[in-house]
Amino acid sequence: MSFNAPVNSILYLLRHGYGMEELRQYVSDDMLGDELVSDILNGAAAFATDVLAPLNKIGDEVGATLKDGVVTTAPGFKQAYKAYCEAGWQGLSAPQNIGGMGLPQVINVAVNEMLYGANMAFGLCPMLTASALNALIAHADADLKDKYVSKMVSGKWSGGMNLTEPQAGSDLGVLRAKAVPNGDGSYAVSGQKIFITWGENDCSENIIHLVLARLPDAPAGSRGISLFLVPKIFVNDDGSLGKRNNVNAIGLEHKLGIHGSPTCVMDFDGAKAWLVGPENKGLACMFTMMNEARLFVGVQGVAIGERAYQGALSYASERVQGRVIDGEENAPILDHPDVRRMMMDMKTGLMGARVINLATALAGDMSKVSTNEDERKSAHAREALLTPIAKSYGSDMGVTCATTALQVFGGMGFIEETGAAQHYRDARITPIYEGTNGIQAIDLVGRKVRRDGGDAMFALITDIENIANEAESLGQGFGQISNTLKTGITHLKTATQAIVSASDKDALAAASSYLDLCGDVISGALLTKAVIMGLKAGDPHANAVKDILAYHAVTLLPRAGSYLAQIQAGGEPVFAYPASQLADL
Amino acid sequence: MSFNAPVNSILYLLRHGYGMEELRQYVSDDMLGDELVSDILNGAAAFATDVLAPLNKIGDEVGATLKDGVVTTAPGFKQAYKAYCEAGWQGLSAPQNIGGMGLPQVINVAVNEMLYGANMAFGLCPMLTASALNALIAHADADLKDKYVSKMVSGKWSGGMNLTEPQAGSDLGVLRAKAVPNGDGSYAVSGQKIFITWGENDCSENIIHLVLARLPDAPAGSRGISLFLVPKIFVNDDGSLGKRNNVNAIGLEHKLGIHGSPTCVMDFDGAKAWLVGPENKGLACMFTMMNEARLFVGVQGVAIGERAYQGALSYASERVQGRVIDGEENAPILDHPDVRRMMMDMKTGLMGARVINLATALAGDMSKVSTNEDERKSAHAREALLTPIAKSYGSDMGVTCATTALQVFGGMGFIEETGAAQHYRDARITPIYEGTNGIQAIDLVGRKVRRDGGDAMFALITDIENIANEAESLGQGFGQISNTLKTGITHLKTATQAIVSASDKDALAAASSYLDLCGDVISGALLTKAVIMGLKAGDPHANAVKDILAYHAVTLLPRAGSYLAQIQAGGEPVFAYPASQLADL
Repeated sequence: MSFNAPVNSILYLLRHGYGMEELRQYVSDDMLGDELVSDILNGAAAFATDVLAPLNKIGDEVGATLKDGVVTTAPGFKQAYKAYCEAGWQGLSAPQNIGGMGLPQVINVAVNEMLYGANMAFGLCPMLTASALNALIAHADADLKDKYVSKMVSGKWSGGMNLTEPQAGSDLGVLRAKAVPNGDGSYAVSGQKIFITWGENDCSENIIHLVLARLPDAPAGSRGISLFLVPKIFVNDDGSLGKRNNVNAIGLEHKLGIHGSPTCVMDFDGAKAWLVGPENKGLACMFTMMNEARLFVGVQGVAIGERAYQGALSYASERVQGRVIDGEENAPILDHPDVRRMMMDMKTGLMGARVINLATALAGDMSKVSTNEDERKSAHAREALLTPIAKSYGSDMGVTCATTALQVFGGMGFIEETGAAQHYRDARITPIYEGTNGIQAIDLVGRKVRRDGGDAMFALITDIENIANEAESLGQGFGQISNTLKTGITHLKTATQAIVSASDKDALAAASSYLDLCGDVISGALLTKAVIMGLKAGDPHANAVKDILAYHAVTLLPRAGSYLAQIQAGGEPVFAYPASQLADL
Repeated sequence: MSFNAPVNSILYLLRHGYGMEELRQYVSDDMLGDELVSDILNGAAAFATDVLAPLNKIGDEVGATLKDGVVTTAPGFKQAYKAYCEAGWQGLSAPQNIGGMGLPQVINVAVNEMLYGANMAFGLCPMLTASALNALIAHADADLKDKYVSKMVSGKWSGGMNLTEPQAGSDLGVLRAKAVPNGDGSYAVSGQKIFITWGENDCSENIIHLVLARLPDAPAGSRGISLFLVPKIFVNDDGSLGKRNNVNAIGLEHKLGIHGSPTCVMDFDGAKAWLVGPENKGLACMFTMMNEARLFVGVQGVAIGERAYQGALSYASERVQGRVIDGEENAPILDHPDVRRMMMDMKTGLMGARVINLATALAGDMSKVSTNEDERKSAHAREALLTPIAKSYGSDMGVTCATTALQVFGGMGFIEETGAAQHYRDARITPIYEGTNGIQAIDLVGRKVRRDGGDAMFALITDIENIANEAESLGQGFGQISNTLKTGITHLKTATQAIVSASDKDALAAASSYLDLCGDVISGALLTKAVIMGLKAGDPHANAVKDILAYHAVTLLPRAGSYLAQIQAGGEPVFAYPASQLADL
């Protein structure tokens, strides 16, 4: 199934509210000029379409294999990875002083959505490298940086993130891997880690593992965890590769999807390691990269949803079956109202999740580049607030679109050859990894909303109220949209007040519904802004985006009311049914 | 992963509003006595748990294979099928005069939910046999019945339903298979059929195919289709098996799930056939069995959702991770509010879909056994009305529960070994086969609501209004529930009026939302009745079911409002976005 990178959709949002204009006052024109951005996006689109997309199916069918500690990726992956590095995509948003291009995160998100859409299993390798790189840039000392980061910026060396252990998943506080000082400034790390994405592979020349482990005298729990760098192959002082370290893949998971991505069980057997950041502050250092990774999982959701949508569109346009109302001949199923509804469900959900992703990235950019400290601070709070929403809303939307797309195929969707089933399987990991969506919801209500008494959320609400007011003032054609949006915002406000003042138990029981409500209302508001700006600028796509928004206003925005009911009910109905009877009835 | 057949849940509903009391006035006590029903359900539970459930995983892993036209099912399936036949389960609700037990459909639904939950891939064989049997009982002439039905009632011979062709899926009107008279009262059928569930297998001794095909002089389209019986092996006049007919499996589909069920490409090469029912009335005859099959797909959704729920419950009870509020030690994740929420989402959705299934079956029973003609007629209309809802709501709920259950497992859910992924894959066929859920929605709004001006639906609405009023009059504890239920019923009424008076296009565009609204509101109302009756009868489970209902009232019932928004918007927002631009943006 062919893939067309959604350049137009992404460019539209970058141009109208989510990047190019907002950042241009801080970033030089040769970074964000319209032509340059178009060129980058079209270049990424070509790479995604021509190089990565054709490998998506073979990645699924052949997968990765492990033999004697050596992981062999699916045919073509190694060559594609080489081409990826040579084109310089890995360093897109890495700082220029370490060999990156220094482009804003919004561009990075835009490019990666296309790469993930083409081949998510492949795209995980660069994602992990970027995450490890971010942690090193933020926390490693100068020696470590000198030795490792430039080769990671190029992609020559990939990164591995080693957190999970069998007994320590969402709760990293109970992890057991140990790090013992060698006496020479280095450490010996021992333990097993599971679910290590691209932890071993034949694409990159070296793998730089970041590993969470405990020092001998560390306190129990999450305050006794440190972060270590463990290279797969030692690096000599001249930068050349030396001997192999004691870190090995001892198993590959047999997964539902993303078969092209090797998910390894890693064994660290006294592997030589170097401390990254302060002792016992490993979790905090880890979160440096975790936030970006979470956003990128939301991006993956949109990406895979987009590809599933395209497959369904192509099938629905060609598959002739049954007459439509007043039709004389059998029609493509795309013309049947219920199939068209499914297409609009997908298109609308994807555009909504995409705008949240870009808004999150933009907030991250602003938190770095703004020359105004207050603006940097509030942008940072906005990024922190939106990240769990981007991750969950995007990933849930990816699964929703994948299942809707499969439905469009009917019986053919259930047959593996058509490809729809692969998206349904691949997408399913995104609500799980980098913190389950339940964990995101807890992060949202706990750290992002309750901790500051709702300040960051109320600031966002004020912004989107302004959008709704502007829409209302435009009248013609926005009436229904602005009304529904205003109702949604009122529900969001009521829900936020409820969350802020609720007991811990009530807030946690309502967390997922609150996150869902945020996703629907915020995406509707952000899209409204994009429509208003696009219309003002005379963008030829503006009316189409407005059609999407109008569909949003009768499908997604109205869900806010039902989520509010659950939020206001709190924990009582969740816990009323006795746990001991859950198996009885 | 072990399986516990949900006898208590099912018995509760059978006892309180959905079968036993209602039918007892028409059906003799030795058919529906409390002890007998318990015995049957416990017997089915034991068979499901001990014989079928252990084969579910091997069916997935090994699947069925085809070699030289011979299909070999997964190890153990053949023996299990033999045991199934010997225990007499196939004939549970078949008429007594042909060797069945003549039990009501409600019991049949109850039993089959357990069998499907244990092993859905296996359960499809009996389902297809029952469907073919129903069509033969209703439409075949005496000679054909004499020859075939008793062996099908015993399960010795299984049934195959041959409808779909590559170009004819939802639109059977364009099918091409041909039937030419042989001159001796028999016909020669030629053509290829796809997606033929259990079309060839090594479990049954013979396979009785029902095949849709065109006679030489048949009119074009759906009015030129006839139904034929094609035995895999000819049956001699003394009932013994003779030579092989020209019908062969020439391919097996490579599917996303239900690997244990062989999905065959069947080739009919001048296969000898006999006409069932009148010439050119094949589609109508086919629908005789289709309605029951649709209900049973809804039952499959609940069944697989229940099994997925049980797996998640077991994992959540054992997996210790993180502290709960005020907790001192790490707790099973079941005690975390968001995980408990997921368990309640599943439990509530399943109970809601289950009660719709049983209400549909009960209406079917009443349409046959009632001594009052008006009651039979209105019961028949009720059955017809509820069937597409049962099919879609149950199957969608199955997929929803399977994905929620997988989420409870976190990363482990994505690993095939834990079994959660199999449910996610298996469940996905149910919204597709026996008429996609989109087709069900069209059936609901077109034939079941608009054709009679809403009469059957308004009759149902009156019934559930009475339930809501009774709940309201009970006061204590029902206040919130009856309020939400009344709002939901009002929305259902408004939506029904909108559907009845809408243009064809608007009605079709709103069809799926209308079906979803029906599912949420009707399930809430029917459960309310079950709670009221259970409380009155002093059933020890009544309070637990009331807890489920209370959860329903803050999660599922409130969705009615958002569905209504889409229904009232009609086709305009669905079609506003130009089809030609769906690929552009």
